[in-house]
Amino acid sequence: MERLPGFRDFYPEPLPHTDVWSADARQFIFEKWRTVARRYNFREYDGPPLESLELFTTKSGEEIAGQLYNFTDKGGRAVTLRPEMTPTLARMIAAHERNYKKPVKWFALPQLFRYERQQKGRLREHFQFNADLIGETDPAADAELIALLIDALRAFGLTEKDFIIRLSSRNAWQEFYKSGRDGVSPSQTSDEYNFFQIIDKLERTPPEESETKLAALGFSLAEVNQFIESGRPTAELESILQNLAARGLKDFVKVDYKVIRGLAYYTGVVFEAFDVQGQFRAIAGGGRYDNLVKLISGGRVDLPALGFGMGDVVLLELLKARGLLPKFDSTTDVFVLIGDEALRPQSLKLVQDLRAAGYAVEYPLTAVKPDKQFKRAQELKTANVVQLENSDYVRIRDLRVRKEIVVGVADTANHLG
Amino acid sequence: MERLPGFRDFYPEPLPHTDVWSADARQFIFEKWRTVARRYNFREYDGPPLESLELFTTKSGEEIAGQLYNFTDKGGRAVTLRPEMTPTLARMIAAHERNYKKPVKWFALPQLFRYERQQKGRLREHFQFNADLIGETDPAADAELIALLIDALRAFGLTEKDFIIRLSSRNAWQEFYKSGRDGVSPSQTSDEYNFFQIIDKLERTPPEESETKLAALGFSLAEVNQFIESGRPTAELESILQNLAARGLKDFVKVDYKVIRGLAYYTGVVFEAFDVQGQFRAIAGGGRYDNLVKLISGGRVDLPALGFGMGDVVLLELLKARGLLPKFDSTTDVFVLIGDEALRPQSLKLVQDLRAAGYAVEYPLTAVKPDKQFKRAQELKTANVVQLENSDYVRIRDLRVRKEIVVGVADTANHLG
Repeated sequence: MERLPGFRDFYPEPLPHTDVWSADARQFIFEKWRTVARRYNFREYDGPPLESLELFTTKSGEEIAGQLYNFTDKGGRAVTLRPEMTPTLARMIAAHERNYKKPVKWFALPQLFRYERQQKGRLREHFQFNADLIGETDPAADAELIALLIDALRAFGLTEKDFIIRLSSRNAWQEFYKSGRDGVSPSQTSDEYNFFQIIDKLERTPPEESETKLAALGFSLAEVNQFIESGRPTAELESILQNLAARGLKDFVKVDYKVIRGLAYYTGVVFEAFDVQGQFRAIAGGGRYDNLVKLISGGRVDLPALGFGMGDVVLLELLKARGLLPKFDSTTDVFVLIGDEALRPQSLKLVQDLRAAGYAVEYPLTAVKPDKQFKRAQELKTANVVQLENSDYVRIRDLRVRKEIVVGVADTANHLG
Repeated sequence: MERLPGFRDFYPEPLPHTDVWSADARQFIFEKWRTVARRYNFREYDGPPLESLELFTTKSGEEIAGQLYNFTDKGGRAVTLRPEMTPTLARMIAAHERNYKKPVKWFALPQLFRYERQQKGRLREHFQFNADLIGETDPAADAELIALLIDALRAFGLTEKDFIIRLSSRNAWQEFYKSGRDGVSPSQTSDEYNFFQIIDKLERTPPEESETKLAALGFSLAEVNQFIESGRPTAELESILQNLAARGLKDFVKVDYKVIRGLAYYTGVVFEAFDVQGQFRAIAGGGRYDNLVKLISGGRVDLPALGFGMGDVVLLELLKARGLLPKFDSTTDVFVLIGDEALRPQSLKLVQDLRAAGYAVEYPLTAVKPDKQFKRAQELKTANVVQLENSDYVRIRDLRVRKEIVVGVADTANHLG
């Protein structure tokens, strides 16, 4: 029996030379994300991986339909595996916002699911570092969140030579759109959204096609390109740039109006993180969604908000390409070698005591020749091999410095390398 | 919009006084589980939360059907949210067993899903600490795994006064069953499984009902009870008891043949962990499943195996009842108070530097009166309030010992309490 296409198995390292993923690398990434989020005083939360379908269709507009792992459960409910975290967060905040002082700074590491057409290397699930800041309209909030994104990438050893945050603004594009509509027939509500979709796909669409689509909405590709090239920061973007400069982070951001983000619910500043060499898809993306909490809560709670998501797949590709993933093949601190089976009970006690003292300890479950045990200890890249000489004394061999001593059993932990 | 019934939202502490769960407590539990597993040199793995339905129906027999979150995906595949981890593990091991030296010692912290009838307090998902040992038939493997279970509970401060591992053996029950069938008509293959189900439910079934059901299989309740009360350890159980005694863990286990475990695939030693006061459902359960890897791999790979699962829900209830959950309400190391808005850029730089040095740092995103900032720092139970006096000096107030000093900005981190 096989796993489903587009899903991943995570194996301990060293990995078999096949198309499987590293559980150790995943845990390494999760720990870095958590560490940086906590320094920024973001608090961890989580919601269910299964939610009402309505939670996502309400929010994300038509582009989400047809891409979900949705089904009807045995109670007749229309449900779906979560394709993103933001609606769950908005739901949770709306339910208990009075209990938390604003601004709320929360993060999560959810697994997300999309039923996309199966392509080589395209996955149907991934993990995301989601960080959100709720209850503050000032661009200082945007700057705080973007600084977190920058430091979350720097935590892996990535520098301004590796990645850049492209900063843009839906407000700027909305103004451009409105001024361009002066004197033309009243637009339908969906027109602005369609305009944003064309801008979002500009870089991966043939110019003629964009030209035609823009013309239908009363714009020329030339004026759009001119606006992009002007790159004049709005007041909010200027404020964010200055804030980041004060932190010493200005080299990690640039204004780039080509970024607009596909999702329907963004309202203000939007941004994406890319590798500088342009080898990979976006590393992360986010922006302001000031109307979403109100929408999800049925108008009951109205709070400005913004957030970003960073997936584990592109990040892992980038870290591998830059040689920034550590080796994960050594986890054993001590191998307790049992040379004389008569000493097995005392050896088990020693195993127990060393584990209680915090060491990762391995030993042979059954009788094995000492030279084979020693070989196994070497394969495990164990730091120390410890062997009872008799009930009272142990021989400790430090395999890294090839040092050997004999000490009293009770003294073992004090002499481990 | 609300979350689905039987699913949990995990909020940061302090919690609103409602029916939500603590993300901090969950993370606390996960970290303890990981720490102990690593000391036992178990390696972390994970598989997809969504699997082929067949993976579970092949393995678990009829008792699993009707309890799953199963559906047909958009590609026409019969799929299900995983109700347990063992079949995924068996699938993963079968796929790559040659790459891993035996015995394999792996653990995972999966979220599992069951579509159970909705009852007050009954959940449809939970997290489980799953640990498995693959490739060793000797009872020494069972002892190693049970020792891990014991230490995973002790890591939370639970003692032999709080919990006990009830140890049993399907082998012993199989012998009892076979000897009881001497001279009666040949049994059907499902009869033994039905017999195990009756034993499994003995403690929560009226005696008359058990009597009737047992009689249909040619047994009396009296002889069953006599076998249970005899409690004579088999050779394998005796070996496990001695092994655990050598580690100093004998007070945490007892032989109890009332335990037999419901699942169809157990083959040898089985066990369950209970709170001594009998207030809660089982804390953990597991056993040997020597035929499962062969079954899942279609006969290609044949490896003995055993494992246990410990859920987060009962454990959390128990820890709360015993007062063993820490408080999670203090996460801020430093509050950078901005008394003069002209010093905001330098204050942002200080925030950045302290975070880079590893501190969890909070500050006001926008202009706020200093006394309100100070109040916020107190609410956050911040250890240190740091305020720039001017570009060169900071005032550091240690709120716990009420000490105040002024030092050079670059020297701040060296003077934090």
